[in-house]
Amino acid sequence: MVSFENDYIAGAHPKILQRLVETNFESLSGYGNDSYCESARRKIKDLCNCPEADVFFLAGGTQTNAVVISALLREHEGVVAARTGHVSTHEAGAIEATGHKVLEIDQKHGKIEAVELERYLKEFYQDKNCEHMVFPGMVYISYPTEYGTIYSKEELQEIYNTCREYDMPLYIDGARLGYGLMSKEADLTLEDIARLCDVFYIGGTKVGALCGEAVVFTKRNTPKHFLTVIKRHGALLAKGRLLGIQFDALFSDNLYFDISKNAVEMAEQMKEIVREAGIAFYLESPTNQQFIILEDEQVDKLKDRIAFSFWEKVDESHTVVRLATSWSTTEEDLAQLKVELS
Amino acid sequence: MVSFENDYIAGAHPKILQRLVETNFESLSGYGNDSYCESARRKIKDLCNCPEADVFFLAGGTQTNAVVISALLREHEGVVAARTGHVSTHEAGAIEATGHKVLEIDQKHGKIEAVELERYLKEFYQDKNCEHMVFPGMVYISYPTEYGTIYSKEELQEIYNTCREYDMPLYIDGARLGYGLMSKEADLTLEDIARLCDVFYIGGTKVGALCGEAVVFTKRNTPKHFLTVIKRHGALLAKGRLLGIQFDALFSDNLYFDISKNAVEMAEQMKEIVREAGIAFYLESPTNQQFIILEDEQVDKLKDRIAFSFWEKVDESHTVVRLATSWSTTEEDLAQLKVELS
Amino acid sequence: MVSFENDYIAGAHPKILQRLVETNFESLSGYGNDSYCESARRKIKDLCNCPEADVFFLAGGTQTNAVVISALLREHEGVVAARTGHVSTHEAGAIEATGHKVLEIDQKHGKIEAVELERYLKEFYQDKNCEHMVFPGMVYISYPTEYGTIYSKEELQEIYNTCREYDMPLYIDGARLGYGLMSKEADLTLEDIARLCDVFYIGGTKVGALCGEAVVFTKRNTPKHFLTVIKRHGALLAKGRLLGIQFDALFSDNLYFDISKNAVEMAEQMKEIVREAGIAFYLESPTNQQFIILEDEQVDKLKDRIAFSFWEKVDESHTVVRLATSWSTTEEDLAQLKVELS
Amino acid sequence: MVSFENDYIAGAHPKILQRLVETNFESLSGYGNDSYCESARRKIKDLCNCPEADVFFLAGGTQTNAVVISALLREHEGVVAARTGHVSTHEAGAIEATGHKVLEIDQKHGKIEAVELERYLKEFYQDKNCEHMVFPGMVYISYPTEYGTIYSKEELQEIYNTCREYDMPLYIDGARLGYGLMSKEADLTLEDIARLCDVFYIGGTKVGALCGEAVVFTKRNTPKHFLTVIKRHGALLAKGRLLGIQFDALFSDNLYFDISKNAVEMAEQMKEIVREAGIAFYLESPTNQQFIILEDEQVDKLKDRIAFSFWEKVDESHTVVRLATSWSTTEEDLAQLKVELS
Repeated sequence: MVSFENDYIAGAHPKILQRLVETNFESLSGYGNDSYCESARRKIKDLCNCPEADVFFLAGGTQTNAVVISALLREHEGVVAARTGHVSTHEAGAIEATGHKVLEIDQKHGKIEAVELERYLKEFYQDKNCEHMVFPGMVYISYPTEYGTIYSKEELQEIYNTCREYDMPLYIDGARLGYGLMSKEADLTLEDIARLCDVFYIGGTKVGALCGEAVVFTKRNTPKHFLTVIKRHGALLAKGRLLGIQFDALFSDNLYFDISKNAVEMAEQMKEIVREAGIAFYLESPTNQQFIILEDEQVDKLKDRIAFSFWEKVDESHTVVRLATSWSTTEEDLAQLKVELS
Repeated sequence: MVSFENDYIAGAHPKILQRLVETNFESLSGYGNDSYCESARRKIKDLCNCPEADVFFLAGGTQTNAVVISALLREHEGVVAARTGHVSTHEAGAIEATGHKVLEIDQKHGKIEAVELERYLKEFYQDKNCEHMVFPGMVYISYPTEYGTIYSKEELQEIYNTCREYDMPLYIDGARLGYGLMSKEADLTLEDIARLCDVFYIGGTKVGALCGEAVVFTKRNTPKHFLTVIKRHGALLAKGRLLGIQFDALFSDNLYFDISKNAVEMAEQMKEIVREAGIAFYLESPTNQQFIILEDEQVDKLKDRIAFSFWEKVDESHTVVRLATSWSTTEEDLAQLKVELS
Repeated sequence: MVSFENDYIAGAHPKILQRLVETNFESLSGYGNDSYCESARRKIKDLCNCPEADVFFLAGGTQTNAVVISALLREHEGVVAARTGHVSTHEAGAIEATGHKVLEIDQKHGKIEAVELERYLKEFYQDKNCEHMVFPGMVYISYPTEYGTIYSKEELQEIYNTCREYDMPLYIDGARLGYGLMSKEADLTLEDIARLCDVFYIGGTKVGALCGEAVVFTKRNTPKHFLTVIKRHGALLAKGRLLGIQFDALFSDNLYFDISKNAVEMAEQMKEIVREAGIAFYLESPTNQQFIILEDEQVDKLKDRIAFSFWEKVDESHTVVRLATSWSTTEEDLAQLKVELS
Repeated sequence: MVSFENDYIAGAHPKILQRLVETNFESLSGYGNDSYCESARRKIKDLCNCPEADVFFLAGGTQTNAVVISALLREHEGVVAARTGHVSTHEAGAIEATGHKVLEIDQKHGKIEAVELERYLKEFYQDKNCEHMVFPGMVYISYPTEYGTIYSKEELQEIYNTCREYDMPLYIDGARLGYGLMSKEADLTLEDIARLCDVFYIGGTKVGALCGEAVVFTKRNTPKHFLTVIKRHGALLAKGRLLGIQFDALFSDNLYFDISKNAVEMAEQMKEIVREAGIAFYLESPTNQQFIILEDEQVDKLKDRIAFSFWEKVDESHTVVRLATSWSTTEEDLAQLKVELS
């Protein structure tokens, strides 16, 4: 059995684990007040070329989304997101649990378009009843999206322009940020990301860490007492070192980017194998997640030999399944995939 | 500089870290659906002698309290807790963030008494206006308490009897459970704990793990779809293995109890050193946290040589500070403490 | 200027106001514990032929929806509603403010269909990731809908069957209940409504009262301490008599039904006038709200002579506007409408 | 049976009811956009001598407190209030329902003192762990308090000074504002109130209206889209006229102050009767609520002849009960009280 079930099937990248072992006996302060957190914050700010940024470490993605979104919204506001956005669908109502509506708009392959966002906003403010409705208070996008697709620099710039025009912060969920930045089709750098939004997070859990996401506020816009906000959400780890050491390792020696690049290359090979097997793609993804269409019989046949994720039914007899690569994907895994698919 | 700042100054107990390293390359399912979580759950249920128990793993204590309490309360209810309880004071309003009031009652050295609880409940239901007030929906205690003190079996039994009489679940915050159970003064076992409450959690973060708490529902009373509730609070780790492997290690070869016992013994030695130095205790604690009273000048003199936590001011010129032991406390640490205090 | 702006443009039906005047000096207990509330509750239960029902009075519709829905849902659940439902669109996020998602499904002319509901539920439970999603915990419909349309007995029975199959309560928002029941096309009675759902409310504000809605739990399913839940939402009036006296009047001498019947008849005359003026209807509504399509030029011309509500744009040059009748609509109003439209 | 149960035992002051009758057939816009709301707002701003004020009408006190407090607090903040404050005790957790803790401080006869507030704030910010605690974000006081007592101008000024020093808004719950202002001991005017706080509300329900409270933001500090915030809390009446007409009447011809003055005078006569009957006061109240201490036997004897409210037990054999006057209290009521007490 070979697994492409997701990008968190294995533990941490060995270099990260090694750092945890090396530093294990050091006495460090808690709650993010340790030298590794400090070092990781500095490295991230440097890479973003954004010395004024503020960086915080949280344990997981849904948690991070809830904390950031509820901290940025006022009572009468909701967050605009793609109908397929993670916050819209797969967070068990974590955003609503903070009292805010997710204002879902149309998307294409997981991406929203500036023009559609503009249309929605214009219509909202033209509505004579808008005071009885949830105001759009910020915009959420993911890079890459839940379908592995990425925004071009131009697309992101347009979305950000619209956000600015309506005075709304733009938040980028970067659970898989590295895989986007290292995609062959990407024309965005980490610095661009930092520049073209108000806050984003750099995903660790799905890019080689045991857990952890790094939230970056880039526009001198950190909510007051954000540490307390994190604590209030139960999202402040006592051993903050666990996150600091991992991110310090991820941003040493280019590790974060190497992990991402390797996974994307593995994904490219995987695409070739899939294509050769005559299997159709649900959509074209340039990152580490691939969505393919299988006949239900194929699914039944393969599921005991290849671990993958069921995504959605296409029709009566076909299913979309997701195959993901990660730091732990090997050439042997791909070779076995080829055997199984042929 | 020697540190007794808290019981989470170091990384994980080496045996735990070793297991993380050994299992790192295994492909495992996410969200707690892996064999290590399963194994840890079984071990915990066995030790509790409670085969019908349900066990869930979360990352931290405040998070665990918020998830459990909000899942057990109905809209019109609050949680009864000591005025000094962790949920009352040091969770940045995490319980209120779920919409529920903490109903604070009087305490002594961090402990509530059945008779005081009874008095409060009786008065509440006698109040002609009680329908305009927050109903007591459950009781929260910590074992050991925030002041290191522990309940005797009789005291716990009495509190639980009162809870049953009023048909309210009793929840025990066991962030430092091991240190209580291994105290020389303890007359409670893990099995007793499981029997004398409705739900409790076994603290990992402060007892040798990198992070993690194990929630145990012991009375066939697990809230419906509790996994979804955890997810909704952003408290479900994708790499659930991080928690499963650690708890599996903690409950192999008696590790959890050995770690706890060792720390308590260190604390006993520390108490001797403090006594010999002529320093007064704020209260008598039989567990790993010691609260001592220092003159403010002493605090100034010592704070650059010994890391401790400021607790509270006693009067104009005296301060309570906390010294804590943990798995990482060594004989050398104690020797140095002795030098510094003398 | 003649007003069809909505069904709350005037004060209370004179008979209601008269009762408020007549009873004004009586000393009555607060919070709904007065004889008029009691009398109104009894009358409603009798008319519903549901002696086991529990009846509560609240001030407004959005408030009522938030209180009922949050009282019935558990943490991991949301409420299923039409995408055009009042809770989905025009309550400024009042449901989300209680921590719950509105799970929007497709609708037709404001109505959901049992088959679409069934499809949604089936798909939800088949989804391998459903534990990461908000569970459907209850169903919300409105009768009449936000577009003035009504369910037939058969349609309601089917929806209720589906709810029962999935063990979910069905809640009917009856802000304009009377106008539905008195529609010429209605085949449902108040008794049917009570039987074919788990909880509903009888709208007062829009059917002749100054304010007030009567919530009816019909299946021995009243949430525990519901009065306290109402209070917690700030929805418990001190002078509960204001609601009790009004509902007692509404359900004396058939007043509620007479008010409704009269408004529906006025609406039928209005439809005739509109048709004769060659103006198209956006949809066919058999109740007191009529949605008509005007050229934007017509809107401009008429808006200073006829008060109506802008509903939505149909295309570049056409707009849907709403005309509503109520207890205060007169033959003179209709005559003036006829003049203005011709 | 004569009733002093509370100050909302009767309907509306006849002049208010008369205005509701006179205006009943006028066509008015909803949601507070009518001429009577506008007129009432203007009158209130004039009386406050605060042209820049913003005025909003809500239906009840608990609702008003929840809406104002949640709109003013940020996520990490709570509201400071007397331990006996209405928000602390008798609102069924309405503040916590919005996610915020009530930070209870010591009081005397229902009043907080600037020096105690100062002490609390100083201690809070000196606490090394304050980032793990709920930040004081605003201060809530009531005028008169829940025990009928009132602040002097000097006391209020001191409290407000402290609030300013810590950059926290001060909010005054004026559910019974008139009775305070018209007390013989009062040295505050409505203008002073408006000047010495950031937001307050003028209670209608308990001062002659059927329902309704007027929120006044006095420092150009109205939360953005506050109408939408009101709607989100289910606190926006469709027939806003019900509130506008009542407040317009209350602030015409000095009615609000006359009602209050009359009730306070009745209370003074009541005090004389109580004193003559040799009954002790629980505390000295200069407003319309009187708290007296009865032997439990007296309570049993009187409760079928005089309606009053049970307040609290003093000891094994004595109880505090409350007697209240209002616009509907008559000389005959007092004469009967005298007979019953003698």
